[in-house]
Amino acid sequence: MKTAVFEAPGKMVVKEFDKPKVQNATDAVLRIVRACVCGSDLWWYRGINKRPAGDPVGHEAIGIVESVGDSVTAIKPGDFVIAPFTHGCGHCAACKAGFDGDCLNKSDSEVVGYQGEYLRFKNANWALVKIPGQPSDYTDDQLNDLLTLADVMATGYHAAATAEVKEGDTVVVLGDGAVGLCGVIAAKLRGADRIIAMSRHEDRQKLAREFGATDIVAERGDKAVAKVLELTGGADAVLECVGTEQSVDTAVKVGRPGAVVGRVGVPQKAEMNTNNLFWKNIGLRGGIAAVTTYDRKVLLNAVLAGKIHPGKVFTKRFQLNDIQAAYEAMDKREAIKSLIVISD
Amino acid sequence: MKTAVFEAPGKMVVKEFDKPKVQNATDAVLRIVRACVCGSDLWWYRGINKRPAGDPVGHEAIGIVESVGDSVTAIKPGDFVIAPFTHGCGHCAACKAGFDGDCLNKSDSEVVGYQGEYLRFKNANWALVKIPGQPSDYTDDQLNDLLTLADVMATGYHAAATAEVKEGDTVVVLGDGAVGLCGVIAAKLRGADRIIAMSRHEDRQKLAREFGATDIVAERGDKAVAKVLELTGGADAVLECVGTEQSVDTAVKVGRPGAVVGRVGVPQKAEMNTNNLFWKNIGLRGGIAAVTTYDRKVLLNAVLAGKIHPGKVFTKRFQLNDIQAAYEAMDKREAIKSLIVISD
Repeated sequence: MKTAVFEAPGKMVVKEFDKPKVQNATDAVLRIVRACVCGSDLWWYRGINKRPAGDPVGHEAIGIVESVGDSVTAIKPGDFVIAPFTHGCGHCAACKAGFDGDCLNKSDSEVVGYQGEYLRFKNANWALVKIPGQPSDYTDDQLNDLLTLADVMATGYHAAATAEVKEGDTVVVLGDGAVGLCGVIAAKLRGADRIIAMSRHEDRQKLAREFGATDIVAERGDKAVAKVLELTGGADAVLECVGTEQSVDTAVKVGRPGAVVGRVGVPQKAEMNTNNLFWKNIGLRGGIAAVTTYDRKVLLNAVLAGKIHPGKVFTKRFQLNDIQAAYEAMDKREAIKSLIVISD
Repeated sequence: MKTAVFEAPGKMVVKEFDKPKVQNATDAVLRIVRACVCGSDLWWYRGINKRPAGDPVGHEAIGIVESVGDSVTAIKPGDFVIAPFTHGCGHCAACKAGFDGDCLNKSDSEVVGYQGEYLRFKNANWALVKIPGQPSDYTDDQLNDLLTLADVMATGYHAAATAEVKEGDTVVVLGDGAVGLCGVIAAKLRGADRIIAMSRHEDRQKLAREFGATDIVAERGDKAVAKVLELTGGADAVLECVGTEQSVDTAVKVGRPGAVVGRVGVPQKAEMNTNNLFWKNIGLRGGIAAVTTYDRKVLLNAVLAGKIHPGKVFTKRFQLNDIQAAYEAMDKREAIKSLIVISD
């Protein structure tokens, strides 16, 4: 079977591997239907983060269950499932509190190889999310919507959930990548009245508006802060979907006293001045999304009911053999997010 | 009239001043009934923070309205009121969002001189909290309970509110000063099932238990973390009522993934590593309490109904003339909090 692997910075290839088998009682083997490239994949693609050559990659997919280990009882062969990048056990303190992205029983080695024909998914019993019916029951657009529930839509939702967005809120979304755009969807889904998307790219501004943004701010840094404060007097909630020092700084400054910043952009700088938080009662929350929790509670139903259309973030489509082009399109910002169609 | 003033580090005196008058339409002049010394007063008393010699001091009191400015319509002369250290206007974005401690219309110069016979209270219309009846309608203990609603009980409540303590939670409270002890009361009031108070002083441990603490941890630093994790597997909410670097660090470490730290201890170090927050989805909230909001919504009723007895934090009582002794008792940790009885 074919799987995408990282060869060197800027170079992706597809290689033949043995088809994976169930090894542990908690495994499931999936035949992948669709996968995609994440903004975070660009870190090692660009050589910013180290990654061993020959490593299978990808962490977002939907697929069909081929076989399951003895202790996997919640799903069975033939089921159509979302394969989240998280692998929550469902019974530790983190999972029970609704933070399965921080499952106390998972290891990082579990999250590899989703961009391939087959995947051994570890800790499968609780983490996999069953989709009703089969892929053939869905339109192409719906399959794309479902695929986003493996990571990007759930991550955007995590930004909104941890920023505690509620009915009637004024919300600022920092970041116009696929996660930020899904953050706009999430803010709208949670009832925000006004959603200000920070974006300077026309195609992304357009999609942000389609997803529910009421205002676009193209400025950055202190100019962006001034503009948002002029528009709103201070946001109730801020979704930080970038992770740079400047973005976090802007996020803290655009909130009114008592606002909460929900951040899902992996922080590029650890140290920050938290007095700026204290003296304005600004909350800082966020981290790794609770994919299975959000899919089951909110997102799968919202997609199935046609209430949200996060699959629109896939602006380019590739076959597995074109994996290099899929990464290049993201790297050069020619695609908001690259879709990889693997099987029917 | 007599007012306590700061003379030099370690030296308090009582001085004669002209009785204050209404100067602005938003002023009220109060005759102070009881006041008290705050842990934060010790910073300048000890010379850690600079303060000009001759400065009137104190920021917590209950009293009787003597006169009001033209635009003060919500209270009238003769009313018995709580004089919060906050001076919310009631109509800015911060006040409307329930964060009147960060009122966008207040200035710091408003918060001085509560430890005296009379006080000119600025921005009085919304901020003052009317207490039913007159001081003579209350027992001595009840007057003490009411006095805590000017700051310390509201600040403890803010720790619990921003830590998002809810029914059934396991809560850790860091700090066994008057604020921390009021944090225990607040956690209990919000329905926490298990409350772990970190304290190494027998008298404070006893009061913490009386207020609702179910467990006491006397360890500090990493030993405290290990003990709490052994007891709970990670707290749902953490009240940080100290402000030292070690305390904030411990607060972040004792939470389960997704826990929220509510901090009211004024931070002694601005820079902190917030990656520790991100990778465990730990929230960091808190700041200056919303005194008027909490008093009106929750705390005044809780005191009037006898549900909470925060006045027990006053373990020593003084007359205004004994102001030096009142500060010394706090400084030497002979009193948890010093009460100053000024008039009937």
